[in-house]
Amino acid sequence: MSKERLYLYDTTLRDGQQTQGVQFSTSDKLRITAELDALGVDYIEGGWPGANPTDSAFFDQVDHTKARMTAFGMTKRAGRSAENDDVLAAVLNAGTPCVCLVGKSHDFHVREALGISLDENVENIRASIAHCIAQGREALFDAEHFFDGYKANPDYALECLRAAQDAGARWIVLCDTNGGTLPSEVHQIVTEVIAAGIPGDHLGIHTHNDTETAVACSLAAVDAGVRQIQGTLNGLGERCGNANLLSIIPTLVLKEPYRSQLETGISDEALEGVTRISRMLDEILNRVPQKQLAYVGSSAFAHKAGLHASAILKNPSTYEHIEPALVGNRRVIPMSNQAGQSNLRKRLSEAGIQIEAGDPALARILEVVKNREAEGYSYDTAQASFELLAREEIGQLPHFFEVKRYRVTVERRKNKHNKMVSLSEAVVVLKVDGEKKLSVSESMDETGSDRGPVNALSKALAKDLGQYQELIEDMRLVDFKVRITQGGTEAVTRVIIDSEDGQGRRWSTVGVSANIVDASFEALLDAVRWKLVRDTA
Amino acid sequence: MSKERLYLYDTTLRDGQQTQGVQFSTSDKLRITAELDALGVDYIEGGWPGANPTDSAFFDQVDHTKARMTAFGMTKRAGRSAENDDVLAAVLNAGTPCVCLVGKSHDFHVREALGISLDENVENIRASIAHCIAQGREALFDAEHFFDGYKANPDYALECLRAAQDAGARWIVLCDTNGGTLPSEVHQIVTEVIAAGIPGDHLGIHTHNDTETAVACSLAAVDAGVRQIQGTLNGLGERCGNANLLSIIPTLVLKEPYRSQLETGISDEALEGVTRISRMLDEILNRVPQKQLAYVGSSAFAHKAGLHASAILKNPSTYEHIEPALVGNRRVIPMSNQAGQSNLRKRLSEAGIQIEAGDPALARILEVVKNREAEGYSYDTAQASFELLAREEIGQLPHFFEVKRYRVTVERRKNKHNKMVSLSEAVVVLKVDGEKKLSVSESMDETGSDRGPVNALSKALAKDLGQYQELIEDMRLVDFKVRITQGGTEAVTRVIIDSEDGQGRRWSTVGVSANIVDASFEALLDAVRWKLVRDTA
Repeated sequence: MSKERLYLYDTTLRDGQQTQGVQFSTSDKLRITAELDALGVDYIEGGWPGANPTDSAFFDQVDHTKARMTAFGMTKRAGRSAENDDVLAAVLNAGTPCVCLVGKSHDFHVREALGISLDENVENIRASIAHCIAQGREALFDAEHFFDGYKANPDYALECLRAAQDAGARWIVLCDTNGGTLPSEVHQIVTEVIAAGIPGDHLGIHTHNDTETAVACSLAAVDAGVRQIQGTLNGLGERCGNANLLSIIPTLVLKEPYRSQLETGISDEALEGVTRISRMLDEILNRVPQKQLAYVGSSAFAHKAGLHASAILKNPSTYEHIEPALVGNRRVIPMSNQAGQSNLRKRLSEAGIQIEAGDPALARILEVVKNREAEGYSYDTAQASFELLAREEIGQLPHFFEVKRYRVTVERRKNKHNKMVSLSEAVVVLKVDGEKKLSVSESMDETGSDRGPVNALSKALAKDLGQYQELIEDMRLVDFKVRITQGGTEAVTRVIIDSEDGQGRRWSTVGVSANIVDASFEALLDAVRWKLVRDTA
Repeated sequence: MSKERLYLYDTTLRDGQQTQGVQFSTSDKLRITAELDALGVDYIEGGWPGANPTDSAFFDQVDHTKARMTAFGMTKRAGRSAENDDVLAAVLNAGTPCVCLVGKSHDFHVREALGISLDENVENIRASIAHCIAQGREALFDAEHFFDGYKANPDYALECLRAAQDAGARWIVLCDTNGGTLPSEVHQIVTEVIAAGIPGDHLGIHTHNDTETAVACSLAAVDAGVRQIQGTLNGLGERCGNANLLSIIPTLVLKEPYRSQLETGISDEALEGVTRISRMLDEILNRVPQKQLAYVGSSAFAHKAGLHASAILKNPSTYEHIEPALVGNRRVIPMSNQAGQSNLRKRLSEAGIQIEAGDPALARILEVVKNREAEGYSYDTAQASFELLAREEIGQLPHFFEVKRYRVTVERRKNKHNKMVSLSEAVVVLKVDGEKKLSVSESMDETGSDRGPVNALSKALAKDLGQYQELIEDMRLVDFKVRITQGGTEAVTRVIIDSEDGQGRRWSTVGVSANIVDASFEALLDAVRWKLVRDTA
């Protein structure tokens, strides 16, 4: 039996940008486009040409893609021809092979939001789609509020779809714009639409997550016969977001009945990229990745319950619905539970530290980790600090130098131009090879801007390490993250520092204190010590 | 037609605690219990008595609840009687009216994880449930891996359910333990289970979110006849989490067909508490609330698209599936878009600032907000800083005092007991009523612990404000949040400070800088200025 083709339509760059706090730059959009194209989606909706400078610049700059590049716009306004509608013209001028036009299909909205007659709206849909076809484009009609419209007035909602169909639209997309429709209703209504004569292989589904069922609504529509799914990466989108393509894609590719019956443009190899793509998007948006995301979250295959974790070690399929590597993700067994010791040995061996099974040091290390984590440390991310802690416990941590004291001063006052400016100064006193070293640095960067006390401290610490100095010359701080791990006035700060060196190594260290400068210093110190351990080994 | 009763079973305190990084204290558990009981859930699963000290202490300390308090455990092990199983005894010893026992229903797991015969497992289920009933308890059987088990060996899976049913279990809970089952399969299998003779009003559903369909799977099970739903607050739980009760409850109470056909224990009034309960849980866990949560997220009714925002101002039902107040949430129209001005006037008027429509100050304020937000400020939360900014623009901000300079020193060195200790000292120089005031404070709290540089700065700033001093005496800093808003070495820090006063007012202010101490000082300064504006008005 040959498989039916199911098409994937990504609208991260258009509807995804409606997320509160999200504003892509043109270069962000180009980078996301390249990732989507490599993933294998069929359509990329790039934005609304003419609506803002970023979207217009994007369509000017984007290279040819395998995916069909699509410009979004709206059906022409009443009282003018499609040819004379400047908004529609701007959309067509982007020169994309596909054009997706949103229009009304709910009688209430035609009257309330547009204030035109029901017939005028139908004519606007027909004429706009016909105009796109006449220009040689593939046309999609986004039927806004379709499900609410169908429930209120099914005849009119269907009339709007037929106007687009008759005018030659390749796809008619059923939109649950307000996100309130449940999967069972979507299945029922799509079944009725197909029975009314719009074939499923010309129907798309566009859902929102306002009842936390956008993914299920998309699948319900496919079950009923729809053959195009619209969604966004990580479920970005207005309000509660759009349907999350990174949850839908693995299900379509890996699970029955979809795997046997339907074919998408996503190869098994491309599927292994979804976890990375999810993190890449968070990185662009400077968001903390959500750990619990289906398939791609860092906790998606994390087993905490003791019984689960020990069963997993026997046979992963006991508590995993798929193999994590299929989506480029990995299994996590926290060290703090019963299955911890064998997992700990594995992690230490990855760091080049061999400990025999049953060595009492294993229990000691687990105990220290547990106590530190209760104080606010987190070793899931700070692998380098974890390694130092383990080496300390087993007596394999050389004491390269000793910190005798440090002092940081932050001062804010008027400069000679009568402008308030800040400057930080740090003094670090170390003992290296029996010799006392005093180093002082300030927080100014090359441009003369103040980078704050942690910057000054970092420079002073790395200024004179005696015989070790040359080993740390190629090291630099690349990221700094801070989190308050206890709220209220007893706030405790956790600092995570990422460092990099000339050999392309990158490592993370952690510090915790009620004093944010102390927490930072602790993480900086670990960063230097890890580098020395590696380079003197 | 009388409505059928649908029961809600919360497992936040047991399965929710399997979330990576979540560890409730006994007092956290007691607080969550009180909230769940006020909300009106039917069952509260409090933990596994005997499995850890926190759970045991919880069952000792918890007061009587309207909801049926439930202890969780597992069916007895093979080779001993139910009466002689110490694990089961510990569960029953908690003395709860209900007991929920998990057991295997998937033949693969009986062989692989338990290593016993299929018949022994059936007998373990029967004997364990019978023992609970004999002790006068209401018994629930959690059929672990039921859906996978049914797909592999339906006869055996059903035999396990019947053993529990025949032994007198009030509820048989169908668990999708690995979270891989899709809603359509859940509907199909539940339909078959009911046809096989287990009545729907004795069936529960327990799903996980590994394909982002846990909520939809729960609803599909209800559609097929199940009458108990298990889930957690905010969807806490192992891996991708459990079904989110705070998404399911509003759908059941507000939406058809559930509203007409089913009755839950949740009143319309209690429903208005769900947004607050969601935030309360995040506060306990010190997590940043997820903005995009269905119904309860702070973005759930946020309208960013210009067309949407202006339609919303005409009629909210154009782009909202429910009225936000029904779930205790509120509409957000970001100021940065077309609909911004009327929304801005509304927000200013809430702060007691009246500006006429069309006043050019409105556009100026919007411009400043937009520029500041691009730098990293966030005025959604920091309403007090927003108010100061607006007052400044319209010339209604009195200049109570001037900051001439400040200096903070953080020093870490050995004390006389040869232990490394830190101490911060802050000097703040102000001009109040033409008079120069120098204040100095240090970071030690009452217990002698160092609270860091921001603490010292906060105390020095509030030490001598001349004629205004008595106005700020009742003010205190209650929370401090910090976020890096740009990653990498150009890191910019945003600090949000929450303050409180003796009149019970609570307000939030924001500061942004590459220098974390500067960012904190800016937020502290705004906190004091807002208090003075309010108290001198």
